[in-house]
Amino acid sequence: MTTYVAPTRDMLFAMNELAGFAEIAALPGNEEVTPDLVEAILDEAARFATEVLAPINAQGDRQGCTCKDGHVTTADGFKAAYSKFVESGWNAMPGSPDFGGQGLPSLVSTAVLEMWKASNMAFSLCQMLTLGAVAAIAHHGSERDRQRYLPKMVSGEWTGTMNLTESQAGSDLSAVRTKAVPEGDHYRISGTKIFITWGEHDMAENIIHMVLARLPDAPEGTKGISLFVVPKFLVNDDGSLGPRNDLICASIEHKMGIHGSPTAVMAFGENEGAIGYLVGEANRGLGCMFTMMNHARLNVGLEGVAISERAYQQALGYARERIQSRPIGATSGGPVTIIHHPDVRRMLMDMKARIEAMRALAYFTAAQMDKAQSHPDAAERQKCQAMTDLLTPVVKGWCTENAVDITSTGIQVHGGVGFIEETGACQHMRDARITTIYEGTTGIQANDLIGRKVARDQGAAVHLLLGEMNATLVALEAAGDKDLRVIAGSLQGGTVALETATGWLLSIYERDPASAAAGAVPYLKLLGTVTGGWLMARAALVAAAKPATTESEFYRAKKVTARFYAEHVLPEVHAFRAAIVDGAGSVLALDESLF
Amino acid sequence: MTTYVAPTRDMLFAMNELAGFAEIAALPGNEEVTPDLVEAILDEAARFATEVLAPINAQGDRQGCTCKDGHVTTADGFKAAYSKFVESGWNAMPGSPDFGGQGLPSLVSTAVLEMWKASNMAFSLCQMLTLGAVAAIAHHGSERDRQRYLPKMVSGEWTGTMNLTESQAGSDLSAVRTKAVPEGDHYRISGTKIFITWGEHDMAENIIHMVLARLPDAPEGTKGISLFVVPKFLVNDDGSLGPRNDLICASIEHKMGIHGSPTAVMAFGENEGAIGYLVGEANRGLGCMFTMMNHARLNVGLEGVAISERAYQQALGYARERIQSRPIGATSGGPVTIIHHPDVRRMLMDMKARIEAMRALAYFTAAQMDKAQSHPDAAERQKCQAMTDLLTPVVKGWCTENAVDITSTGIQVHGGVGFIEETGACQHMRDARITTIYEGTTGIQANDLIGRKVARDQGAAVHLLLGEMNATLVALEAAGDKDLRVIAGSLQGGTVALETATGWLLSIYERDPASAAAGAVPYLKLLGTVTGGWLMARAALVAAAKPATTESEFYRAKKVTARFYAEHVLPEVHAFRAAIVDGAGSVLALDESLF
Repeated sequence: MTTYVAPTRDMLFAMNELAGFAEIAALPGNEEVTPDLVEAILDEAARFATEVLAPINAQGDRQGCTCKDGHVTTADGFKAAYSKFVESGWNAMPGSPDFGGQGLPSLVSTAVLEMWKASNMAFSLCQMLTLGAVAAIAHHGSERDRQRYLPKMVSGEWTGTMNLTESQAGSDLSAVRTKAVPEGDHYRISGTKIFITWGEHDMAENIIHMVLARLPDAPEGTKGISLFVVPKFLVNDDGSLGPRNDLICASIEHKMGIHGSPTAVMAFGENEGAIGYLVGEANRGLGCMFTMMNHARLNVGLEGVAISERAYQQALGYARERIQSRPIGATSGGPVTIIHHPDVRRMLMDMKARIEAMRALAYFTAAQMDKAQSHPDAAERQKCQAMTDLLTPVVKGWCTENAVDITSTGIQVHGGVGFIEETGACQHMRDARITTIYEGTTGIQANDLIGRKVARDQGAAVHLLLGEMNATLVALEAAGDKDLRVIAGSLQGGTVALETATGWLLSIYERDPASAAAGAVPYLKLLGTVTGGWLMARAALVAAAKPATTESEFYRAKKVTARFYAEHVLPEVHAFRAAIVDGAGSVLALDESLF
Repeated sequence: MTTYVAPTRDMLFAMNELAGFAEIAALPGNEEVTPDLVEAILDEAARFATEVLAPINAQGDRQGCTCKDGHVTTADGFKAAYSKFVESGWNAMPGSPDFGGQGLPSLVSTAVLEMWKASNMAFSLCQMLTLGAVAAIAHHGSERDRQRYLPKMVSGEWTGTMNLTESQAGSDLSAVRTKAVPEGDHYRISGTKIFITWGEHDMAENIIHMVLARLPDAPEGTKGISLFVVPKFLVNDDGSLGPRNDLICASIEHKMGIHGSPTAVMAFGENEGAIGYLVGEANRGLGCMFTMMNHARLNVGLEGVAISERAYQQALGYARERIQSRPIGATSGGPVTIIHHPDVRRMLMDMKARIEAMRALAYFTAAQMDKAQSHPDAAERQKCQAMTDLLTPVVKGWCTENAVDITSTGIQVHGGVGFIEETGACQHMRDARITTIYEGTTGIQANDLIGRKVARDQGAAVHLLLGEMNATLVALEAAGDKDLRVIAGSLQGGTVALETATGWLLSIYERDPASAAAGAVPYLKLLGTVTGGWLMARAALVAAAKPATTESEFYRAKKVTARFYAEHVLPEVHAFRAAIVDGAGSVLALDESLF
C-alpha cells in the first residue's frame, strides 16, 4: 500500500493558472492571503495528511465503528488524530474569523480539504458535516445560537451533523415526519432520522445536530419544514455542558465503504422530547438547509477528485514497482515494470487526465464562489453566483461519477492483487461508491441542473460559459501549435454538442418535462466533460506559453495530458448528445410491466 | 433483497432467434436436443437456481470461508447445496456422455450456467473450474488419467482447479517457477501457486489440481512449461482414494467480493514433493491450458451477463416498490414508485439493454462454438471457429467491463439504501469487480484480440462479421419501419467506426505494435458495442416481423430496448474510434517520471 502524498504542485497550478488565485487574493478581505502563505498552508496540510490521516485510513476501513447502548466507538487512532486535527487549527481553517476561524478563501480551503478527503475520506466527513452545520447557524441562527455554538464548532471541539433523511423521506424531503412541538423558547423534537453521518461518535465532547422537522400547524410538503439545532448535550448560558438531551444513536449501518465514518440511525425524543431551537424562520427550514447542502455538494464533488487522486497514486505506485512481461514487440531482454505496457499507461493517463480536469473544475467553481461573495463589482458578483449555481451540481455529479470509474480503474491496474483487500485499492472504490449518492444522487443533481440552473434562466449561465469556451478556442487556434490545434478541434466538437443539447433542452423543458428529465444525467455529464475539456485546454495554453526554461517537464506533461483528454475523454460528448436529443422516447416508452 | 428468477423467456429468445438454436439442434449428435427438452431443462435449472443457490448467496458473502490448518470451511449451506447440485446431475450436464455427462450443446449449457452464476456466482465458480480441468484432461490427458479422473469430475464428486499464477507470474506465465522432477511414471511437483479458486474446500472428497510447472531441463519462457494433474488424494487403480498428496492450502485471500468462493494459496511439495502426472506433451503445457482457458474466458464473460441480470432484478424490484416523490411535472397527487421517474427508467433501460446485448453475444458465440465442433461442412466449421476465436475475448472483456458498470448502476437505482450491505446490491458490484481481472484481464483479452484474432488473419474474421452486419443493415432499411430505420442509422455509424478502426489497426500493427496496443481495449469495447448493437438490431427485426397477435408486448419491448441501445449505447463507438485512431500518441508520450 502506498501512502498519500498531496499533489501540491498540481494543486497550485490549478489554483494559480486555471482558477485565478491572483484575482481571489485581490478581493477585499483577502489582503493577507499571499502566495507564500498559501504555499506554507498547503505544505503543512500535506504533511498532516501524510503523517496523521493517511496512516489510519486502512484500519478505519478494517475495524469500522461499533455501537453499543448508544455509544459509538471509532477505529483505533481516530480519536487521537481528531484531537491533533483540532489542536493544529485545521478544523478552524475554513471558518469565519468572527468565531475563531482563519477566514481563508474557498479556493484555498478547497485545496486543503482535498488533502483530508484523499488521505482519509471517512475521517474528513466529520469536519465536512461540521462545516455545513456552522454555515447554517452562521447564516440563519439567532445571535444567541451563534455565540453559543459557533466558537466550539469552528474550532472542532464540538462537531455538527445534518439530520435530513427519514426512511420514507430520502430524495423527497417533503415527506419528513419528525415533529417539533413548541415549549417556551424551544421545541420538543421527536422522530427517527437515518443515514446521519458522524451522528454519534467518541471524538468530541458534544455533537450539534441540525434537524429538519415539522411544527404542529405546518402546511404539507416542503413549505412546512423547519430547521432546528438540537445539541447532544444542552449548553448552559456560561457555555458549559448541561444535561444530556433526549436523543440517542439507535444503531449504525453496515456499509460498502467509508467504514471509518459512523452512519447513524438517530432517535429523537423517545422520552420527553429532545430540546431544539428554531433556526431561521418557521417552515423555511429547507431553504436554510440548502445553505449547508450547496457547500456540501461542492465538497462531495471534491471528494470525487480526492479519492480518485488517492486511487491514482496507489495504482501508479504499483505500476512503477510490479515487474511483468517484456515490452510489447520485444523478443529478447527481461521483463519490465508494467508502467511500460501501453494499456497500463492508457489506464494511468485516463485516471490522470480526468483527475486534473475534475480538480480544475472544482477549484474554478470555488473561485467563482469567492468572487460571488466578495467581488466589489455587483455585476461581477452576480455573474459569478450564476456560474457557481450552474457548476455546483456538475462538480458534485460529474466528479463523483468519474470517481467510481477511476477508482475501479485503479483496481484494474493492479490485476489480481487489486481485488485483495490488503492491497488497499478496493477500499478506494468502496469508499468512492457513496459519493454519487449522498448529498443528492446524480439524478437529483441533474434535475437541479436542467431545471433551476439551465431552464430557469433560459440558458443564460450556460451561454456565459460557452462564451468563455469560445474565447479559449480562438486563443488555441491563434497559437499555431499542433497539440493545441488538436485540442481545439476536440473542444469545438464539445461546445457544439453542448449548444445543441442545451437548445433542445430549452425547447422542450416546459412542454415535456419528462423527456427533458430523461436526458438530465447525460446532460450533466456532457456539461462536465466539456467544461473539464475547456479547463484542460486552458492548461495546455498556459503550458505552451511558458518559456522552455521554466519547469519544462511539468508543463510538457500538462500539454500531453490535455491532448489525451481531448482524444480519449472529450469524444464521449457525442454519445451524451445523442442520448439527450434522440433518446428520450426510448427511455419513456416501455410499460412498467415490460421491464 | 429480491430473489433471483431466471429470465427463461429472454434466454429462449436469445437462443432461438439470435443464436440459431434450430441449426444447433440439427447438428449431428444433437438428435435428442428438442425444443421441449431444452425448455424442460431450463425450467428445472431455473427452479434449482431460485430454490437452492440464490438463498445462500448473501450468507456466502457475509460468512465467507475460513481456513485452519490447511482445511477450508465454506459458508453455511454451501456443502449441502453442492451435494444436491451433484445428485441432481447439474454438474454433469455440460459434460461428455463418454464420462457420464449429458453432452448438451454449448448453447444450452450456456443458458443453464448463466443461471448458476446469477443466483450464486461464488458457488458457480467451483463447477466452472471443474469443467476447465475436465476439458484439459479430456483433450490432453492419457487414457489412464481420463478413466481415473473424468467420471468423478464430470459427476462433481471430485472438483477441479487451475493452478497457473505464482506471485511473480500473473499475466506473464513464462515466469512460472514451480518445479516438476521426473520419478518413474510420475513427477514430484514443488512450488507455490496463488489465486487458486476453490483450491481447497469441504464440498467434495477429492480435488484434482491442474498445475503448470517446469521440468528440470525445460527451456526458458513459455515453451518450457508443462501441465500436470496433481490430485489432493492420490487415486488407487481401483478408483478408491489413496494417501494424501504433498500439497496443502497455506491460506485463503481476503477479497473484495466472491467471499463464498475460497481463493487459495496452494503449497505443493513442502515435504517429499507432490506426485503429479504429465498431461499432454512436455513443455507444451501452455497450449493444453489454453483449452481450459478459452472455455473459462467465455464462462467469465457469461458471468458478466449473469451478475448484471441479478443486479438488474434487484434494482427493478426496488424501483417497483419504493415510493418517493410525485411524477415529474405533477403539482398535485401523491408520490409514486420510483420506476415512474425518468432517470430511474433511464438507468433500468440502460441495464436491460446492455444485458440483452451481452446475453445475445455470449449465446451467439456459444452457438458458433457448437458449429465449429460439429458442423458437417468443413468450411462452415472453419468459419465458425474463426468467429469463436474472434469473439471469445470480446465476450470476456466487454461483458465483464459492462458488468462493473451495470452492477454499479444497480446500487445507484437504490439511492442511499444501495450502499447498505443488507440490501444486497453492493454484493453484486463487489462480486462483479473480479470478472474483468481473472482468466486474463481486459488488457490481456484486448491484446489477444488485436494480435491473434485481428492482425494475424489480416482482419478476415472481422470482415466476415462486418459482412453479416451489412446484410442486417439491408434488411433493416428494407423493412420500412421507423424504429428499424433509426436503429439502422446508429448501427451503420457503428460499422463504419469498426471498419475505420480495424483498417487503422491493420495498417500499424506490424510497424508500431505499441501504438496498436494503446488502442487495444478501446478496440475490444468498440467491437463488443457494435456486435451487441447488431444482435439487438436483429432482435428488433425479429420482433417487427412477428404477427401482432403473438406475444405482442414481449416483442414490442424487444423493439423499444433495441432502439434504446441504438440511441444510448451504440453512440459510444465514436469515442472508442477516436481513442484508437487518434489517441495512441498521447497514451505513449509521457516519460515515466512525469506520471
